[in-house]
Amino acid sequence: MNTPAETVYETTISHIGAYENKRVELRGWLYNKRSSGKIVFVILRDGTGIAQCVASQKDVGEQLFAWLNRLNQESSLIVQGIVRKDSRAPGGYEVGLTGCTIVSEALDDYPISLKQHGVEFLLDNRHLWMRTPRQRDILMIRAEIVKACRDFLHSEGFVNVDAPILTPSACEGTTTLFSAKYFGEQAYLSQSGQLYNEAAIMSLGKVYCFGPAFRAEKSKTRRHLTEFWMVEPEAAFMRFEEMLGLEERMVCYIIESVLDNCESQLREIGRDPRQLINIKPPFPRITYTEAVEMLTQKGIAITWGEDFGAPHETEIASEYSKPVFVTHYPTKIKAFYMQPAPDNPETVLGADLLAPEGYGEIIGGGERIYDYNLLLERLKEHNLPLEEYVWYLDLRKYGAVPHSGFGMGIERVLAWICGLEHVRETIPFPRMINRLRP
Amino acid sequence: MNTPAETVYETTISHIGAYENKRVELRGWLYNKRSSGKIVFVILRDGTGIAQCVASQKDVGEQLFAWLNRLNQESSLIVQGIVRKDSRAPGGYEVGLTGCTIVSEALDDYPISLKQHGVEFLLDNRHLWMRTPRQRDILMIRAEIVKACRDFLHSEGFVNVDAPILTPSACEGTTTLFSAKYFGEQAYLSQSGQLYNEAAIMSLGKVYCFGPAFRAEKSKTRRHLTEFWMVEPEAAFMRFEEMLGLEERMVCYIIESVLDNCESQLREIGRDPRQLINIKPPFPRITYTEAVEMLTQKGIAITWGEDFGAPHETEIASEYSKPVFVTHYPTKIKAFYMQPAPDNPETVLGADLLAPEGYGEIIGGGERIYDYNLLLERLKEHNLPLEEYVWYLDLRKYGAVPHSGFGMGIERVLAWICGLEHVRETIPFPRMINRLRP
Repeated sequence: MNTPAETVYETTISHIGAYENKRVELRGWLYNKRSSGKIVFVILRDGTGIAQCVASQKDVGEQLFAWLNRLNQESSLIVQGIVRKDSRAPGGYEVGLTGCTIVSEALDDYPISLKQHGVEFLLDNRHLWMRTPRQRDILMIRAEIVKACRDFLHSEGFVNVDAPILTPSACEGTTTLFSAKYFGEQAYLSQSGQLYNEAAIMSLGKVYCFGPAFRAEKSKTRRHLTEFWMVEPEAAFMRFEEMLGLEERMVCYIIESVLDNCESQLREIGRDPRQLINIKPPFPRITYTEAVEMLTQKGIAITWGEDFGAPHETEIASEYSKPVFVTHYPTKIKAFYMQPAPDNPETVLGADLLAPEGYGEIIGGGERIYDYNLLLERLKEHNLPLEEYVWYLDLRKYGAVPHSGFGMGIERVLAWICGLEHVRETIPFPRMINRLRP
Repeated sequence: MNTPAETVYETTISHIGAYENKRVELRGWLYNKRSSGKIVFVILRDGTGIAQCVASQKDVGEQLFAWLNRLNQESSLIVQGIVRKDSRAPGGYEVGLTGCTIVSEALDDYPISLKQHGVEFLLDNRHLWMRTPRQRDILMIRAEIVKACRDFLHSEGFVNVDAPILTPSACEGTTTLFSAKYFGEQAYLSQSGQLYNEAAIMSLGKVYCFGPAFRAEKSKTRRHLTEFWMVEPEAAFMRFEEMLGLEERMVCYIIESVLDNCESQLREIGRDPRQLINIKPPFPRITYTEAVEMLTQKGIAITWGEDFGAPHETEIASEYSKPVFVTHYPTKIKAFYMQPAPDNPETVLGADLLAPEGYGEIIGGGERIYDYNLLLERLKEHNLPLEEYVWYLDLRKYGAVPHSGFGMGIERVLAWICGLEHVRETIPFPRMINRLRP
């Protein structure tokens, strides 16, 4: 059946395969162009993909042909043309241009040309840098991970609650807190919704918060942003072992979703999906004490009781091809709310999940203290202002239950899944020391 | 088939209907109890629902029976018992208790008793208040609305991007901004992700951000929180009319999701679902000018060019049983980025969506200026610091396209859907002037 040339299908590049030999209208931006005599190849991107459009002087007329030849990168266009199967074209189809409206001609000084640029320059132009295919692919994978977290937690019966950002007190100390003025009072930007989640589970059983978290990280590292997103599930009656199982299932669900829905993006950014397909339960588990022994045997100086740094984490993770749980850290180096292990109260029922390939901690979690007196003691040991924790102590006065939870940093997981060198590419507008713009 | 009494099914209250005549184990909190001689009714809540458990001295023994009779509200319990159909019980089933472990006895001074309390007292005890069935229901409906927004936008091809919270400049003026110290520099907490979305659409076509927004609202009103959550879709090439259609579809999708999945919660909080079932497209549309005429005819003093206050909005909305679009506001009272209407540039292609029943504006949106020179002019007219908008102006230099977007406040929508008097019940931990705790 022939479609009359007059019928024009408005569509997006992601869908042109459905319109073979039909006339479509696409709206997007000029990503690149190549001329060869009587033909110009217009490479169009529209947010859903990239399409090669071919214009011949014969088909589009002399005036439009000349115009296309002059057009600057990033000019916005509405093009019409016939979709043709062509195995050489990206996506397997090309569009034989029959018409084109130029919505807005880009000025000729577009800063992000198709050559290499320095990192600071790219970050200064993040609003334009994000248009490049690699950055777009990473942002698509980020969105998939966020969706996968929510879908997974919903399927497990967790209810989304939004923890507050403006808080009067610190969850884990005040040294890395951003402060804000709140009607004459001092407020802080939240580093974690955990304490609030612990209240919410007494109402809803299983909850998670998912929002921005803030850390006034003064050092420049490839793993830290000052503003990042974190998903934090917490459940009443969930014990430590159950929690590790939940973490495993969630990470595997995320990997599966990305492989199912973003394989082309992974390939385009140069990440081999085979590095991810074997990420399946169970994940290896070692205790902190075993990890210290392992490091010592490798000739790395560490004493029991010291916290791990990035090099230690990388060394431990390098032994495994899957994420590895490091459990039972010393009580003294972990947060005040961690439940002591019954068989060795110098260690806690807490675990960090370390990603392979040197990506370090992607999840931290554990069972929380639910005994009132022990929690009170810990708050005092940590010199925390008791008056700010009255409500948190209340949770141990009225119907305390064993409970656990964890926090997963989205940017760290994304960096690992995409195989990125630096977290600055993992968020639309990264915030770091000296970087608050654009 | 008889299940042997020894088989115990661990489940939640929401699922007990599947275990009729079987022995289940439930874990939760004592919500209430009633004694009548040789029987005690233990009303258990577990986050998924409320169940009536009946204990007779004969079945549970003298010691446990006495213990149950003494137990304080909010004590945490693990109960075992046989599920029996009983139309008089909440949910249609009751549990004949056979055993009970008390996890933690609540102290007898639990502040939120089952009688009435003052609002400030409830807010001071928000961490406990949220356990009451009404607050739990509202939080469940909130989670449903958040999920519906994301599901809807995903089905329409929108990609989730996270706009930054820490920003150097203000979207709509600085008078209601919270400031934060950022490594010696002044930063502000974002009021909207819109400007960042406008950059992201040039990469991804259709995007939305969904995060906390901040407004240093100094007045106490029943519609304002200082920290609230907002979903903000934005799309390249989307014109004003298309955007109104998108808003309509999204609001209706949310209503449908809540009616499908939270009807029992609506009923429990006293909201008649019939007030919502007729919220279907199309929504009525009137221009600002028509609205002014309507108000004048009703004897309400207003001059063309004045902004509407809450009483005006209530009056306009009272004419309709569905949300109503008020369009084409005067340019002078709207934000600098709003596209002038082609037939009357003294007005803008912007619309507020006003909810029925006096709930006021739930959505604000419009088409954005995409002409470089007009935007520059507007920035100057509004005395905004040009150096902070260089990147935003860039979006009009390189491939500008017509585009539109809107922002929907989750708490306002939730308040309307639930029929709440005040937004303070719409968020787990409300932030208002003088309210930063718990």
